[in-house]
Amino acid sequence: MRPSGRQPDQAREIRLTRDYTRHAEGSVLVEFGDTQVLCNASVEAGVPRWLRGKGQGWVTAEYGMLPRATHTRSGREASRGKQGGRTLEIQRLIGRSLRAAVNLKKLGEFTITVDCDVIQADGGTRTASITGACVALVDAIRYMQRKKLIKQDPFVQLVSSVSVGIFKGTPVVDLDYPEDSGADTDMNVVMTESGGLIEVQGTAEAGAFSRAELNALLDLAEATGADLFSHQREALGIRQ
Amino acid sequence: MRPSGRQPDQAREIRLTRDYTRHAEGSVLVEFGDTQVLCNASVEAGVPRWLRGKGQGWVTAEYGMLPRATHTRSGREASRGKQGGRTLEIQRLIGRSLRAAVNLKKLGEFTITVDCDVIQADGGTRTASITGACVALVDAIRYMQRKKLIKQDPFVQLVSSVSVGIFKGTPVVDLDYPEDSGADTDMNVVMTESGGLIEVQGTAEAGAFSRAELNALLDLAEATGADLFSHQREALGIRQ
Amino acid sequence: MRPSGRQPDQAREIRLTRDYTRHAEGSVLVEFGDTQVLCNASVEAGVPRWLRGKGQGWVTAEYGMLPRATHTRSGREASRGKQGGRTLEIQRLIGRSLRAAVNLKKLGEFTITVDCDVIQADGGTRTASITGACVALVDAIRYMQRKKLIKQDPFVQLVSSVSVGIFKGTPVVDLDYPEDSGADTDMNVVMTESGGLIEVQGTAEAGAFSRAELNALLDLAEATGADLFSHQREALGIRQ
Amino acid sequence: MRPSGRQPDQAREIRLTRDYTRHAEGSVLVEFGDTQVLCNASVEAGVPRWLRGKGQGWVTAEYGMLPRATHTRSGREASRGKQGGRTLEIQRLIGRSLRAAVNLKKLGEFTITVDCDVIQADGGTRTASITGACVALVDAIRYMQRKKLIKQDPFVQLVSSVSVGIFKGTPVVDLDYPEDSGADTDMNVVMTESGGLIEVQGTAEAGAFSRAELNALLDLAEATGADLFSHQREALGIRQ
Amino acid sequence: MRPSGRQPDQAREIRLTRDYTRHAEGSVLVEFGDTQVLCNASVEAGVPRWLRGKGQGWVTAEYGMLPRATHTRSGREASRGKQGGRTLEIQRLIGRSLRAAVNLKKLGEFTITVDCDVIQADGGTRTASITGACVALVDAIRYMQRKKLIKQDPFVQLVSSVSVGIFKGTPVVDLDYPEDSGADTDMNVVMTESGGLIEVQGTAEAGAFSRAELNALLDLAEATGADLFSHQREALGIRQ
Amino acid sequence: MRPSGRQPDQAREIRLTRDYTRHAEGSVLVEFGDTQVLCNASVEAGVPRWLRGKGQGWVTAEYGMLPRATHTRSGREASRGKQGGRTLEIQRLIGRSLRAAVNLKKLGEFTITVDCDVIQADGGTRTASITGACVALVDAIRYMQRKKLIKQDPFVQLVSSVSVGIFKGTPVVDLDYPEDSGADTDMNVVMTESGGLIEVQGTAEAGAFSRAELNALLDLAEATGADLFSHQREALGIRQ
Repeated sequence: MRPSGRQPDQAREIRLTRDYTRHAEGSVLVEFGDTQVLCNASVEAGVPRWLRGKGQGWVTAEYGMLPRATHTRSGREASRGKQGGRTLEIQRLIGRSLRAAVNLKKLGEFTITVDCDVIQADGGTRTASITGACVALVDAIRYMQRKKLIKQDPFVQLVSSVSVGIFKGTPVVDLDYPEDSGADTDMNVVMTESGGLIEVQGTAEAGAFSRAELNALLDLAEATGADLFSHQREALGIRQ
Repeated sequence: MRPSGRQPDQAREIRLTRDYTRHAEGSVLVEFGDTQVLCNASVEAGVPRWLRGKGQGWVTAEYGMLPRATHTRSGREASRGKQGGRTLEIQRLIGRSLRAAVNLKKLGEFTITVDCDVIQADGGTRTASITGACVALVDAIRYMQRKKLIKQDPFVQLVSSVSVGIFKGTPVVDLDYPEDSGADTDMNVVMTESGGLIEVQGTAEAGAFSRAELNALLDLAEATGADLFSHQREALGIRQ
Repeated sequence: MRPSGRQPDQAREIRLTRDYTRHAEGSVLVEFGDTQVLCNASVEAGVPRWLRGKGQGWVTAEYGMLPRATHTRSGREASRGKQGGRTLEIQRLIGRSLRAAVNLKKLGEFTITVDCDVIQADGGTRTASITGACVALVDAIRYMQRKKLIKQDPFVQLVSSVSVGIFKGTPVVDLDYPEDSGADTDMNVVMTESGGLIEVQGTAEAGAFSRAELNALLDLAEATGADLFSHQREALGIRQ
Repeated sequence: MRPSGRQPDQAREIRLTRDYTRHAEGSVLVEFGDTQVLCNASVEAGVPRWLRGKGQGWVTAEYGMLPRATHTRSGREASRGKQGGRTLEIQRLIGRSLRAAVNLKKLGEFTITVDCDVIQADGGTRTASITGACVALVDAIRYMQRKKLIKQDPFVQLVSSVSVGIFKGTPVVDLDYPEDSGADTDMNVVMTESGGLIEVQGTAEAGAFSRAELNALLDLAEATGADLFSHQREALGIRQ
Repeated sequence: MRPSGRQPDQAREIRLTRDYTRHAEGSVLVEFGDTQVLCNASVEAGVPRWLRGKGQGWVTAEYGMLPRATHTRSGREASRGKQGGRTLEIQRLIGRSLRAAVNLKKLGEFTITVDCDVIQADGGTRTASITGACVALVDAIRYMQRKKLIKQDPFVQLVSSVSVGIFKGTPVVDLDYPEDSGADTDMNVVMTESGGLIEVQGTAEAGAFSRAELNALLDLAEATGADLFSHQREALGIRQ
Repeated sequence: MRPSGRQPDQAREIRLTRDYTRHAEGSVLVEFGDTQVLCNASVEAGVPRWLRGKGQGWVTAEYGMLPRATHTRSGREASRGKQGGRTLEIQRLIGRSLRAAVNLKKLGEFTITVDCDVIQADGGTRTASITGACVALVDAIRYMQRKKLIKQDPFVQLVSSVSVGIFKGTPVVDLDYPEDSGADTDMNVVMTESGGLIEVQGTAEAGAFSRAELNALLDLAEATGADLFSHQREALGIRQ
C-alpha cells in the first residue's frame, strides 16, 4: 500500500555516520532512507547578547537545503537574500528540540550551533535533522569535556524525532516524499528517551483529524522512537 | 492559582466586533481578554503565480504586531527590513488554518488575504487571530456573493483556535502573558465545528510532557472550542 | 461643493482618546473623521549612538499603515523588506515636529519613540499623526515625571498639524481622501500654540500656486490650529 | 555677517555646464558655489507598470551623494543595502518638481530619468539638483525631438529652486553648509518662470517661524529665482 | 618542505564520484585531498530575460560553503541576507569557465545551472569546483541528449583547473589550506584539454612576482592539468 | 585596425588631476581617454573589527558607477539594495592592489578608504581606478604626515594598471569599450615600478589563449606601465 512497499509501522533504514567532516566539533551524516542531512555542531565561546551575564550557555540550530537536494532546483536562499518561512520554522524547531537535551546552566557561557544542511531530500528532513543533530551535539559536548572547557556534564538526555501521518486512510510512520505530498494528515513528533514528548506538530492537509487518529499516530511515533534511540546510542557507543 | 484568578477551564472574555474598519471586505476586531487583534480580509482578483490556470483560488494570511503591542517596545519589522521567524511561523499557521474553512475550487481565481495585526498583546495572539480571521473571511465570502463574483458558496466550516498549557503543574486553557511565559508546556489547537483537529502544536518549554497530559490539554481545548464557535456564529448571525 | 458637504473652513470631527492601549507610556487614538491613527509613545533609557555622552535625550517617530487601512490593500512593508519613500518622509516629518514640543536637554539620556500606526485612512494621516502623537508624547513625559526618571519638565509647547489645499479652485481645510486625490495644491502645516510655524510643506499637484493662495491656505490652517490645540488641551486636562 | 561675506540677498556663483558627459541624452554639471551636482537625463522607451496603457509618459529622478562629497566620509548607500530617508525624500522632491516642467501626455510612453549625483557638497544640493536637472531634462526632450521620437513638444516651462533661511536672525538666500547647519529656519522653494510656486518646504530647526518671516524668505527666493531662470535660459540658448 | 610532505609538482589525490545525489541531472562529488565539493548540474527550460529570443542557451554556476566547511564556523550567507564578494567572485569564475566547455547555440533555449557547494574546505575550493562541475555539466548534457531535448551535441571540450603558488620561495601546485594562507603568490589557472588557457588569475599576497615566476607557475599548472583531464575522462568513461 | 585608429601598443591619453574635490584627503580625477574616474581617499582613525589591536592599519577601496556613465542607463545599486558581483569583484581588486603600495604596519591604526566612482565609462574603468587611486592614496599619506598623524612613512611603491587584450587576432593595449566588448581575450595587469606583477587576470572570452599570447600581452602591459608610472610621478611632483 505504501509506495515504497513498507509496512505502516516500518521506518526507513536509519544511518548515523559520525566524524563525517573533519573541522566541526561534532559532525554527523544522518540518513533516513534517501534523505541525507549533514549535521555539524560548532562550539563557540560567548552567548547571544540577550543572554550575556546570565551564567548560562545557548544551543541553537540553522537549517538549509542545497538547491538541488530536491526533485527540481529551488533557488538558493543566500542569493535570494533571505531565508524562507519554512526554513526559519524548521530551524526554530530543531533548536528548541536540542535545548531539551542540554542543561544550559551547566554548559557555561558557550554557544553550540548545529548546522543541518540537507544534501538530499526525500521527506522527513526536519525529523532526520533533529535525530542527527542530537548526536552531533553530544559529540560537541564530549569535545568540550576533553578540552576541559567545562567541568560539569551538561548533557541531559537524547532526543529524537520521526514523522507520522495518515496516508490513504492508514496511519504510517516516517513518510517519504511521495507519501508526504499525498498525506491527509502529517505530524512531526520529538521525543525523549524516557517516553516524554518535546514537540507534537500535527497538521491536517485535507479535512481534519480525530483524537483517535492522533493517538494512533502517537503510538506509531513512540514505537519508532525506541528504535531511533537505539541507533543514537549505538552510534555514540553508549552501552544499552 | 492562575494569576488572573480564572478557573483552569475558564477562557477569557471573547469579543468579536465585525465591520471594525470600513475599507476591508471583512473587518473584525477579536479580543481574548486584553489581547486585541484586528483581522482585515481583502478580496483580490487573481492568484499567486504558482496557482495560475488551475481554476482555483487562494486564501492566505499575514501577521504583524504593532511595535508597542507588548510590554516593552519591539523593533518595527518594516524598518529592520525583514519579518522574523516567529512572525513567518504564525502567519503560515493562520493561512493553513483558514484554508480548512474554504473550498478553494469553489472560490475561483480570487485571493483572500487576511491581515492579522496585533493592537495589544497579552498572550494567545495567534489563536485569537485564527478565531477572528475566520469571521472576517466569512464576511469577505459573503461580500463576493453579494457582488456576484462567485456563484457557488466556497465556505465549508468555521475554524477556531485556543491555547492550552500546563502552568504550575495544572492544565489550563487560554493562557495570558504571565501564564504563557511561565508554562511548562504550551499547545495551540485549531479545531473545526464538527470536532475535528486542524492543527495541534505542542511544545515542552521545560522537561517534557506525557500522553496523559496531552490528552488533558486537548480535552480543555475542545470544551472551549464549543464556546468559540458559539461566539463566531453569534457574531455572524448564524442560527445556532 | 466639498464631497463631504463641509464648509471650506470646516475641519472634520476630531477625537483624541488617551490610554487607548495599556502597555505604552502614552497611547492615543486620534481621529480626524474617518482617519484613525494609533499613536503609542515608548520611553527607553539611552540615546542613539551619535548622541551618546552629549547629556541630552532624543524624540523620534515611526509611521506605518496597516495593509488594509486603504481602499485597496497595499503590500505590507515588513514583507517587502523595506519602508517606502513616503513612509520615511512622513516619519521624519513627525519626528521633527515632535522635537519642537520638547527640550531635549531637560529630557536627559532617554529616547521617546512615538509609533504612529494608521488603522484607517481617509486623507490627512500625517497631520492627524502629529496632532495625536504630541498628546501621547506629553503622557510619556508625565509618566517619566511620576516615575522620577527626570527632575525637570522637558515639555515646551503643544504642536498640532492640519492639511490645507486648493480643491476645485477653493482653499479648503483638512482634506479627506476624495479631496486629497483631486486637489491642485496640497499643503501640510505644523504649528505651535503661540502661533508659530514649525513646518510648511506645500506642493502643487497641477499647475503652480501663488503667494496669495499660499497665504489663504495658511489663514485656514491657523484658524483650525486654534481648535486643534483646544482638543489637545481638553484631552490632556490642561486648563484653558 | 554671513560666513562667506555674501549679502543676505546674494546667491553664490551659479554655473550650468551642458554636455558634461557624453552618453546621457542630457548631461549638466550644475554648480552653486562649491556645491557640484552632475545631472544626467536618460530617455527610455516605456513607462512604469502602473502607468501602462494610459497613453502618457513619466519623468522621475534619482539622487545620490558620492561618499566623500562631504566633510567626513558617509557610507555608500549601495553597500549599506538601502537608500536613506533623506535620499528618498530628496529624489521624490526633484521628481515632483521636474514633472511641473513637462506635459506628460505629450511625452508619450517614454520615461525620462534624471540622475542627480552630488560630486561635492556645500549646502543646497537639492535646490542645485532641481535647477540643473531641469536643463538636462530640456536637453533630453530636444534629443527626442531631433530623433523624431515625439511629435509634439512636451516642454511646458522651466523650474528652478533655491534655499532660503534665517541665519542669526537674518533672512538669507542660498545657504552654504556653515549657514545650513546653523540656521534657525530653513526653506526650499521651487518656482516657475511665471512666478508660481511648485514646492515650499520650510522647517524650523530651532523655535518656530512667523508668517512675516515666511514672507520675507519667499521674497528672497523669488528675487534669486529670476536670476536662476536667466542662467537656465542662457545655458540653453533660449532668447531672453 | 611542504606541510603535507608533497613534492612541489605533486597534486593531492583527486577523486570524482558521479551520481553522488539522485535528483540532479549531473551530480559529482569532487575531492582534491580533503577539499570536498558537491557539484550538482540542473537543466531547466528557458534562459535569463536578457537572452530571450536569441536562440541560444545559458550555463551558469552558483557557489556556497557550508558554514562549518572551514576551521571555524563562518556565518550562513542566507541568514546574513547576502552573498559575500568572495562568493560572487568565485561563482562568476566558475560560470565563465564552464561556458568555455559548451557551444551555447547548440544548447538551445535551456539553462544549465551548476551548484558547487563546499562540504569540506582545505584550500583550492574554486579549482576543485571547476574541475568537478565540468563533469557534472557533461552528465547534464548527456541527460538532455537521452531525453531528446537537444539534437546537436553542445559539448565542446573539457575544462579543468588547479591552483599554483609560491610557497616559501618555491613554486608548488595544488595548495592546501596551510600553504594557501602562507603563500607569497597565489594563482588559479583554468585550462582546456588542447593546452589553451581560459583563465589566469595571479595575485601577489606579499611583494610582487616576476615574469619568470609566472612562467614557472604556469608550467606546473599545465603538467597537473594533463592529469586532471585524465581523471575527468576516466570518470566519464571517455576512451583516452 | 583599432576602432580608434591607435597603434596596438598605444595607450589612450592619460590625465591625472589632483585636488579635484576639496573635502577628501586625496582627490584625483583619472582619465584614460574618455574613461573618467573620480578617486577620493579618506583617512579615518581606527581599523575594521577583525584587525583591532594588531597594531596595523588598513587600506581598502569601494567602486561605483554613476547610472549613466554607460551607453544605456544601468540601475542604481543603492536603489536595487545591493552591489552586483562585478562591482564587488572590482573593488576587491582595487583594494588588494593598493595594499601593495603601503606598509600597513607603518600606517598605524588608521583606515584609508579610496572611493572610485566612474563618471564616464569607455572601457578600462578598473585599471584607470587603480592608477588614479594610487595617486590619491599617496596624497592621503602625505596629509597624514603633514598633520603628524604618523611618524614613519608607510608609502612603499607606486602601483599602476592597464588592460591588454587580443582584438581581431592582434594583441593591443588599453582597450576602449568597442574593443573590450569584441576582444577574444582580455587581461588586466597590475604592476609595480620595479617591474613586478601584483595581479594578472586574464580571461578568454572566445576560445582560449596560448602561453605565447599571454607573454605578448604582458610585454605590452609592461611597456605601457613605464608610461603610467611617469604620469603618476609627474602628477605627484616626484623627481624622475
